[in-house]
Amino acid sequence: MNVKIILQYDGSRFDGWQKQGNTENTIQGRLEAVLEKMCGYPVEVHGSGRTDRGVHALGQTANFHLPDGENWKVEQVRSYLNRYLPDDIRVLEAEQAPERFHSRLNAKSKTYRYLLETGEKRDVFSRRYVCALGKCFSLAPGQRPDLARMREAAGFLEGTHDFKGFSSLKKFKKSTVRTIESITFEENGTVLAIEYTGDGFLYNMIRILTGTLLEVGLGLRTPESVREILETGNREKAGKTMPPEGLALVCVRYF
Amino acid sequence: MNVKIILQYDGSRFDGWQKQGNTENTIQGRLEAVLEKMCGYPVEVHGSGRTDRGVHALGQTANFHLPDGENWKVEQVRSYLNRYLPDDIRVLEAEQAPERFHSRLNAKSKTYRYLLETGEKRDVFSRRYVCALGKCFSLAPGQRPDLARMREAAGFLEGTHDFKGFSSLKKFKKSTVRTIESITFEENGTVLAIEYTGDGFLYNMIRILTGTLLEVGLGLRTPESVREILETGNREKAGKTMPPEGLALVCVRYF
Repeated sequence: MNVKIILQYDGSRFDGWQKQGNTENTIQGRLEAVLEKMCGYPVEVHGSGRTDRGVHALGQTANFHLPDGENWKVEQVRSYLNRYLPDDIRVLEAEQAPERFHSRLNAKSKTYRYLLETGEKRDVFSRRYVCALGKCFSLAPGQRPDLARMREAAGFLEGTHDFKGFSSLKKFKKSTVRTIESITFEENGTVLAIEYTGDGFLYNMIRILTGTLLEVGLGLRTPESVREILETGNREKAGKTMPPEGLALVCVRYF
Repeated sequence: MNVKIILQYDGSRFDGWQKQGNTENTIQGRLEAVLEKMCGYPVEVHGSGRTDRGVHALGQTANFHLPDGENWKVEQVRSYLNRYLPDDIRVLEAEQAPERFHSRLNAKSKTYRYLLETGEKRDVFSRRYVCALGKCFSLAPGQRPDLARMREAAGFLEGTHDFKGFSSLKKFKKSTVRTIESITFEENGTVLAIEYTGDGFLYNMIRILTGTLLEVGLGLRTPESVREILETGNREKAGKTMPPEGLALVCVRYF
C-alpha cells in the first residue's frame, strides 16, 4: 500500500529533512525509524523535497510503501506515527495513494513562506519562527523595508528563469531553470510574510531571494539589479542568505 | 529613579520567576544580572508575583530602583536590557514610575490564561504554549470538555473564598482568602482558553483550578463538587495540577 502523508514540523532542532549517513537527527530519519519499528523492517520515505537544517514545514508531503498482505489502515498508521514521533513532528493526514504516486516526482508546485519581524518589538513566542530583520541588517531608527520597491523587484523574478545566481550550490549537474508563479507580500502588524509559489526551488534559493528582496526594500540595491543576477547567474551579485528560522514549507500541490 | 517595566518571557527553559539561592536560571536572576552589568552594582528587581517553573508571561510587570545622579533614560535602559537579555525574555515597555510604586504591593488584579488543545490535531508550533488535553486525561474518541458544566462550576469559584484547597502549599502562614473576579472560556477552533482574573492567586492555584474545571467538563465530577473543596479546604478533593506549559500571566493591573 502506498501511503501519502501530510506533516508538520518545527525544524529548529533537526538537521533538515534528508537523511545523511549516520545522522539520525533528520525528519526523514525519524519517520523511517518509527516505520521500521512498526513494520519490522526498513521502509523508505520519499519527501516532496528537502528542507534545510532549521527550516520548518506546515504541510510537507511524503509517501512510503507498506508491504501487502497485512491489512494496514491509514488511520492506524497515522496514530502510530504520532504516538512514536517526537512532539515537534506531527502527521496531520494520511491517505492511501495510487501505487505510482511519488511525492517528489508528481509535485506540481510548492509554496514557501518567509516571516520577518520588521519592527523593534520582537515577540519571544515566535522567535524560532520569525526572523528579526534587525539581526540581519543595520536599520536606521524606524526604518522599514519599502514594499513597493520589493514588489517591483519581485516582478522581475516571477516567471521562468535560470536561477543559478540565487543558489548556494557550487556544482550544477541538473538544470537550474525554474518557474516562480508568484511572490506575494503580506503585512500583519510589524510581521512581513513573503510567499513564494513555484514548480521547484534550488538549494537555499528562497533564503537568497528573500535577502536580495530585502536589500532592495532597504535601499541597498535597485529593483532592476535583480535582472543582472538572473542574466549573469553570478551568486556574488545576489543578496545575503537569510537565516533558516523564518522559512517554512507551506504546502505542496499535485494538481 | 524607579523604573517600571512590562516584560514577556517564554518560561520553557527557566526555573520560574524567583531567584533561588545560587540558581541563576530564573527570570528575576537574568534581569538582575544584566542590571548589575549596566550599573556596576547589584540592583534588586521586584516582580508583580512569581511565576512557576515553565510558566510564561505576556505582560509580567516589575520595577527596580536605579541610583540617582546618573541621567538614566528609560528608553536606554530598555534597549540595554533587550540587548543583553537572552532572546526568550523581552522588555516591551519601560517607564519612570513614582518613587513609591511597587509592582507586587500595588498590584490590583492579575489575569492568567490557560491554553488547552482539546482536539486530536496538535500543532507542533504551539506545543510549548498550549497543553494537550489528551496528555492529561484519557479521552473517549471525539470527547471534548462540556463548557456549560465548566461554566457552572466556575460560577461557584468566582467571588471571595478561601482557596486553600486549590493550592499545593503545605503550610499556610498567610491568608488563603482571594477574590476571583471572573473566569472566562473562549474557544478558537479546538483550542480552549480559560482566563482567570483576580486579586491574587496561591501557589499552583490556577493549574489546580484548571484541572478541577476540566474534570467537571469531562464528567469526572459534578459542578457542585467544587463547593466542597472551598468549604473543606482539602487539596485532596480538588482536581489534578495541570502542567505549566499551558499557563501564561497575561497582565497585571494597577488601577
